[in-house]
This record gives sequence, structure tokens and C-alpha cells, in this order.
Amino acid sequence: MTNTANSGTTALLTDHYELTMLQAALRSGAASRRAVFEVFARHLPHGRRYGVVAGTGRLLDALEQFRFGPDELSFLRENRIVDEATLRYLSSYRFSGNIWGYPEGDMYFPGSPILVVEGTFAESVLLETLALSILNHDCAIASAASRMVTAAGGPGQAGRPLIEMGSRRTHEAAAIAAARAAYIAGFASTSNLQARFTYGVPSGGTSAHAFTLVHDSEKESFAAQLASLGPGTTLLVDTFNVEQAVRAAVEAAGPRLGAVRIDSGDLPAHAVSVRALLDSLGATETRIILTGDLDEYSIAGLAVAPVNGYGVGTSLVTGSGAPTAALVYKLVARSDAPLPDGEPAELDALRPVAKRSVGKPGRGGRKWAVRERAESGEAMTERILLAPPSGLGPADRVLLRELVRDGKITGREPLADARARHIAALGELPGYALQLSRGYPAIPTIFGRDGDRA
Amino acid sequence: MTNTANSGTTALLTDHYELTMLQAALRSGAASRRAVFEVFARHLPHGRRYGVVAGTGRLLDALEQFRFGPDELSFLRENRIVDEATLRYLSSYRFSGNIWGYPEGDMYFPGSPILVVEGTFAESVLLETLALSILNHDCAIASAASRMVTAAGGPGQAGRPLIEMGSRRTHEAAAIAAARAAYIAGFASTSNLQARFTYGVPSGGTSAHAFTLVHDSEKESFAAQLASLGPGTTLLVDTFNVEQAVRAAVEAAGPRLGAVRIDSGDLPAHAVSVRALLDSLGATETRIILTGDLDEYSIAGLAVAPVNGYGVGTSLVTGSGAPTAALVYKLVARSDAPLPDGEPAELDALRPVAKRSVGKPGRGGRKWAVRERAESGEAMTERILLAPPSGLGPADRVLLRELVRDGKITGREPLADARARHIAALGELPGYALQLSRGYPAIPTIFGRDGDRA
Repeated sequence: MTNTANSGTTALLTDHYELTMLQAALRSGAASRRAVFEVFARHLPHGRRYGVVAGTGRLLDALEQFRFGPDELSFLRENRIVDEATLRYLSSYRFSGNIWGYPEGDMYFPGSPILVVEGTFAESVLLETLALSILNHDCAIASAASRMVTAAGGPGQAGRPLIEMGSRRTHEAAAIAAARAAYIAGFASTSNLQARFTYGVPSGGTSAHAFTLVHDSEKESFAAQLASLGPGTTLLVDTFNVEQAVRAAVEAAGPRLGAVRIDSGDLPAHAVSVRALLDSLGATETRIILTGDLDEYSIAGLAVAPVNGYGVGTSLVTGSGAPTAALVYKLVARSDAPLPDGEPAELDALRPVAKRSVGKPGRGGRKWAVRERAESGEAMTERILLAPPSGLGPADRVLLRELVRDGKITGREPLADARARHIAALGELPGYALQLSRGYPAIPTIFGRDGDRA
Repeated sequence: MTNTANSGTTALLTDHYELTMLQAALRSGAASRRAVFEVFARHLPHGRRYGVVAGTGRLLDALEQFRFGPDELSFLRENRIVDEATLRYLSSYRFSGNIWGYPEGDMYFPGSPILVVEGTFAESVLLETLALSILNHDCAIASAASRMVTAAGGPGQAGRPLIEMGSRRTHEAAAIAAARAAYIAGFASTSNLQARFTYGVPSGGTSAHAFTLVHDSEKESFAAQLASLGPGTTLLVDTFNVEQAVRAAVEAAGPRLGAVRIDSGDLPAHAVSVRALLDSLGATETRIILTGDLDEYSIAGLAVAPVNGYGVGTSLVTGSGAPTAALVYKLVARSDAPLPDGEPAELDALRPVAKRSVGKPGRGGRKWAVRERAESGEAMTERILLAPPSGLGPADRVLLRELVRDGKITGREPLADARARHIAALGELPGYALQLSRGYPAIPTIFGRDGDRA
């Protein structure tokens, strides 16, 4: 039963019950009903003031690979997971519907429909697990990363650069996605080489304590690193005694030493004393990089310290207390009967549906979303509508974009666009949004037009 | 620079600085020094009383795929990440050393050397990121899972079965590893099909709210599910009104209905009233499955409720508050000079090394570990020694096993062995260990022989 050979497909990154539902719906006829599923969060985690969309690009890649090949079909047959009629359906499975979504780097709030999937019930229900896995992970990381970037002084040239270095603290594949999500949210670089290989995220890093310890002395290790990596490198100075190490580093490298890294101890105090020492040694351009269990709060606390950059690991890849984004994938509308092939669903043909569970109410009907902005450009309202938006104000932004049309992926974009979008979206939020303390969503989500009941 | 074609290798699941350290060490000569690295946790997260080892088997698989092929070498060259001498070294990279580790399913405590890697500095330092990614993730999940199994009444037939259903709340590849780790720690099954495909973890699931809502009524959806999946299926009864749904379910399925699932509301109260209702309808064998944001504490709170099984999602895949295990990979000993090829390192030839950073002290020297047990079999001490154990008591257990010998993997085992080991290891712990409240490690870690200074 053990088999690792199907790395080319994403089809089994799926909960068992998606396939049993498919089987029963094929038999009942509901499989071919037109359906709209939406991904949204009922709440932001942890008193956060906004969430950041990430993962959409990865989802499009994964959708393209969502195919049941001979290995998957044999597996499902031999384990009697579904019947022959269902296997026949799966053998030719291609998502043929439409998907819209908030683009990566944009913000979301409670109720924001960040993904809208329209197709047959059969083809759409199968994507639930994969869509949620990707979006819940990547949005959680990007949402935490954005706050860290703000704590470090803001995105772009305004703030101190952040390097993502949490690969070792999370699943080896999640690490790649985390580096990508952090980059979207404004991190400058990553330690993860696969993230550079796959997504072009800039990577960096020089040495660890082991490099110092494998040499006969710290002095010899500095000489070895400088001989190989040049004076622009970053020397790690907290293996034994920070002050002695900084002196040895400048002695070995000269005043053109690129940077020193401090990974432990009283970081704010070290920053001040090391800056003074570097300056006194003539190394006025040598940068100070701090690492070691930093999070957005400790970074904010270092704002007045003479620091040039930060490395963030554990807190980034674990979402700084919110490792998952609480996004759900819910059926919100369906037709009463199958629609003729290839014909788009008339809005009127879709009936809103929602469960009425205590504590987890749904809100039926397909949604459209607008970020209403004042003339100044400041975001005021996350407006969620049950019809395509009309009568927009001059500064309002329509939030959903086409990602997939008739099964064809149309919404790919370079990662740089998502980075730029995040800076712009951050700039439109009210100042309240950028505070790190627990609070309410930065703007209210309002369903329907003012005065409507939605 | 975007490329996703190297899925066959794990070599780039690696921090940039491992490669720059390699480059500098190749130049200084330290690359060929004999080195011992160890993986251990300085503390257990979150007031936990024990940790559970998981991931070792996955690490052995990943080690076998740790190869720098033409795509990886071109990438490193074109991005000027390392020099030509380093690329030559990497092109023939195969780990040729030895690895020992705690086997999966066993417990660990602060300082337990759960992995010991011995080889040249060059070949060993490269494995840091990959080893930590896998072990930090999988140990975190297994450690949380074990507590949930205890809360549900214990492993095996003693307790109520737990199904892992957190795939949608974590990265899509982490989900597979989480299902595997939870299974090692005593979960009965998973929702994740890829975990069944790859590792043979039993999978299960029947339907979601969307299946009810895509039909014209709950009654029709029950009929559709029963027609396709048979009366032994599990019907979801909380889409609208639980009592009405349970009546409709038994009416449609008859008293042989397999189970009902409740995913929301006041779960303890629902369990009691639904049990009474099922019994009154003659469905005395119909099981009650609870899901919906359960964790070890809510499961413990349901102990007296008439429940037959639980599904756990978010809290499992996020480690129930501790999503990473805080394991580190540290150089603890090295030779002063390269050793002759193929010659095993004499113990005396290896010099203990450790950093002296404030707050993150190291403990130099290669370690061996014994779980000292009373004659009753109860674990008393995690004994960490700087020499191979001798003078063991009759019930003492040596904890490290050979996993890799001269680069050849020798430590593979079936997942069933890890599951059985976990039950046995749980059975040896003092009762204190099984309490869910925050506490201290269940047994003390003692370095050296009594009276020694280590």
C-alpha cells in the first residue's frame, strides 16, 4: 500500500469524503447541478486587524495538476474508496468552470469572498481540500509577515529589510510556500534555496555557529569565511563573547566588513554597544543584523536600536500565534437542475443556500466585493454584495478578478505584482490597521447596500 | 528564474548558508574534519510533559533523495550562490556517514539526542535544514496527537477512535506528514487520501454540509447518500436542526444506520440527547461521531458523554498551540584534522565543542541515551551519557538505534512498529505524564552518571 510515485498530481491532496460525496451525487443526479462555492473567513484570527491574501498563484498551479491518472485510479479502485461510475468520472476529470478571487497581496476581512468557484457540484466540490490547504497556510503566513514588515518600519525602502529564515521550523514543503508568502507581504529575502529555485525569491545567508566551532578558533573561522566569501560577508559574533568577536571581526576583515549578526542575548543592548564599538573601530558602514526568536513585537521594540536588518524564523512560519487562517469553502448557491452544457449560469437560475448550524451560520448567495474608499483613497468599508457592483464611487475598488474561465487559467501574474499590490493595499488602510495590539478589523464588512438586508 | 521541475530531489530544501559554510570550509580545510551533529530540544513546548518522536522514516526517505543534479547545479552556478570548487563537491554529494536516532513513536525529553549524525563536517552540515524541517514538524504533530489519544481514553481498543481531518488547515504537503505522525501517535485514521496512498494510513469520511445543501432537502440528501454508500454510512445531522435530522436519518436508513456526525453546537448536550433519541428509535448500535474544532481539552470534557469517536482537524495540524518542536541541530564534537578515508572515528579523536551564547548554552560531546526504568518497567530517568552505556539495569532501555551506516540506510521499519512502540512507551511513563495540564517533563533528564559532571 506504500507508494510515493505520484508526485506529478495534486488530485489526492483531497479529503476522502469529497470522493464519497461525488459518488453519491453522481447517483442522485445532483453532481451536474450548477454550484457556487466560496472561500471566506468568518473571523480574523487572534485580534488581527486585517488578513493578507496569498496562495492564489500556487492554487492555480495545483489546479493544473489536479488529474486522476492510472496510479490514482488503481489506488481508489483497489481500496474500494469509490465505485466504477465514479472512477470513470474521475478518469476524465478536468475543472471546466470559472474561478474568481482576490489577487495576492490584497487585504481581506471577515466575510470577504477571497475565492469564488463556479461549476458543476461535482467538479467544484472536489477542489475544497486543496484550495483550503493552500489558502489557509499561505494567508496565515502572509498575514503575520505583513505585521513584521510594518514593525520593521514598513515595506520597500522605508523600513529595515527582513529575511525569512524559518524553513527549519516548519514542514519542508511548507517552508517554500512560507518564503513565497512572506515575500509577497514585504520580506526582502529568504534562507530557503528551493523558494529561490521555484519562485525566484531572493535568498541569502552566510554562516552558523557550527562554522565557528569546526575551526580551531573563532579567529580562524573568521579568516576562513572572509577568504572565501570576501569582506562584504556577514560574520556571526555571538558564539563566545560578542565584544571580543566584533573586535576580531573588524581586525580580520578591516573596516569594510559587510555585517555582523547577533543571534542571542540581550539584543537591544547588544545592538547599541556593538554599534558604538564598530564605529570606534572605523567600521561605520558595517551593518548589524539581529536574529534569534524575533517576532513583530520584539522587532517593534528594537525600532530605536541601531539595527540594519532582521532575520525571522519560527514566528513567521507559525503565523505568529495564528498558524492557519480559518478560511472555509462553502456551497452558497446552486441550480435546481443541471444546466445545458457550456451555457453560463443565469444569476436567477442559482438558488442561495446556507446551513443554519448554531455558531457557524452561513450566508447564502453568490457574492461580489468592493473596497469602498474615500476620495483620499482611504479604505472605508468592505462591501459584500449579492449582485455585480454598480454605482461605484470614484475611488472604490472592485476586489474579485477572473482567475479561471471555462477551465482555462487566466489569472497568473508575476510575484512582483503581488508585492506591489500589497504595498498599495497597506497604504489605503486607516492608521489604526497598522497597530500591533489586538483589535477589531480595520474596516467593517457590510453585507448588501446600505439599508438592504442581505 | 521560476522553475518547478526538480521535484525528484530534496537537496534545495536547504538554507542558503549551509552552502556558503560548505564553500568556506572546503577552502579552509575544515570541510573534511570529522564531525558529530545532534538534534535535541532545549525544552518541551508549552508545559508539555513529554514529546513524541516522529519523522525519522520520512527523513530517511528524504536523505536518499538528497542529490544535486544538473538542474540544481546550474541554478547554483547561475545565481552565483557557491563557487566552482563547491559545485564539484556537490555534484558527487552522497552522505557517507552514520546516523543514529530515537525510533519513531518513542518519547523524548529536554536534551534527548533524538538524532546523532556523524560524518565529515561538509556532508553533515548540509543536512541541517532538511533534518530539522522534518523532525520539527512531525514531532510537533505527534506530540499533540498523543495527548488527544489519551484524552479520548487511550490508544488501541481502550479508547474512542480519532480521525485526523486537518488537511484543509495546513499546507497541502504538511497535511500528509501530519496524518502519518498522528497515526504513529495512535490516531485510527485520516481524511487525507494521499496519506493512505503514500503511507497506508487508513482513510475515511462520507459527506459534508455541501452535500445536504446541493439536494432539494435534507431528506433527499440522506436518501441519496444511503442509496450510494449503504446504511452503514455516517450521516451529517447538523445542517439545519439536529433532532429533526436524526429522526429523518433513522427513518431513511433504518435502525442499522452506521453513525451520525455532529459538527457544531453544544456538543456534550447534543451527544446526550441524540443518544437518547437514537435509542428511542431503536438505533441502539448507531454510533455518534463528534467533530468541529475539538482539541485534547474538549475531548477530555466529553469523556462522560455517550460518544463513539472524534474527528480532529485544526488543533491537530497546528500542534495544539505548539506548531513546531523547538528542535535544534548542533555541532557537538569534531576532530582536529581530517581522518583517513573510511576509518571510523575513535572516540578520543573527537573534541567536544559548544557555543557559550547567553540563554542558548550548548553541551559539547557526542551523547548516548538510556531510559532508566524501575523493575516495574516505569520510566525513572532520561540518562544522557558522554560514552556508550555500560552497567545497565535489567529494565533500562538504550534509546539510540542505527539508522544509517556508511551512507547506507539501515533503519527503515513499518509504520505499525512505530505505532506499537508508542503504546509501549506511553505505558512506561508515570501517571503524571498523562495529565493534560501544563507541567514539567514527566521524567528528569540527567546528564552523566550520578555524581558525574557532564
